[in-house]
Amino acid sequence: MVILGIDPGYATVGYGIIDSTGSNNKVIDYGVITTPKEQKLPARLKHISECVKELIAKHKPNAICVEELFFQSNRKTAIFVAEARGAIILSCMDSDIAMYEYTPLQIKQAITGYGRADKNQIQQMVKVMLGLKSAPKPDDAADALAVALTHAQTNKLAHLFNM
Amino acid sequence: MVILGIDPGYATVGYGIIDSTGSNNKVIDYGVITTPKEQKLPARLKHISECVKELIAKHKPNAICVEELFFQSNRKTAIFVAEARGAIILSCMDSDIAMYEYTPLQIKQAITGYGRADKNQIQQMVKVMLGLKSAPKPDDAADALAVALTHAQTNKLAHLFNM
Repeated sequence: MVILGIDPGYATVGYGIIDSTGSNNKVIDYGVITTPKEQKLPARLKHISECVKELIAKHKPNAICVEELFFQSNRKTAIFVAEARGAIILSCMDSDIAMYEYTPLQIKQAITGYGRADKNQIQQMVKVMLGLKSAPKPDDAADALAVALTHAQTNKLAHLFNM
Repeated sequence: MVILGIDPGYATVGYGIIDSTGSNNKVIDYGVITTPKEQKLPARLKHISECVKELIAKHKPNAICVEELFFQSNRKTAIFVAEARGAIILSCMDSDIAMYEYTPLQIKQAITGYGRADKNQIQQMVKVMLGLKSAPKPDDAADALAVALTHAQTNKLAHLFNM
């Protein structure tokens, strides 16, 4: 199955697309959507939405997974990221593809088996799990691949236990 | 000009539509969009988006005004409201109608001339400004009318001073 993982943001949105068959995970594409600082929020949300829809049209994923927000210390940033996340989720809903949400804790546990893993540990595991030569860059793209891999892991376990 | 004011939320979204000509403001419609607690966020955002688009198609506003978020004490609620606000703004962007954002402070000052006005004072002024027999209910609808009236006031001043 093709899985699109999204790490939400308003200045930078990470995305990662993998093909997951059994315990074999292959990377299809990854990268970031960026929006210019000079633009107002509505225009930035519109741009993000159009890029997300293009990714969906191009890769036709079977599942879309969006990371849930961690309640950051900077409230103003958290509000902007949440607004972008709402716009991203709505953009995905237009496609009728199954959607899933994973918390940062669920992602850390699925990828490293350890809820307090740091960014570097996550990136190294993403690299290993996808058989890449180096950790995917930038960080937001690696985070998005981690979300997609979390769904692949969760899905595999669900099948094993007939959940 | 027809102005659509929106008070964002994820459980309850307030809306208010007014017709503003010179210093004359008439109410066209107001109310709330509600989403069921049992539904997951993506479905709730989709429902809100559909209702907002219906309002735009029905009333064909010349301007859409969305209240900005106040950084609430309850972070989890603030995040959900921000996600809904992002989805609302994106839904409005599809229509190519001019969009405006007003902070709670701007709204209080435009409606009552006083930045620390309470909910009741705002509602009484909305009632007077729209020539209604009683304050519009529920609160979220009154707040949305206040956003629309803020735009009417701001617009009138901009014309007076050739801004």
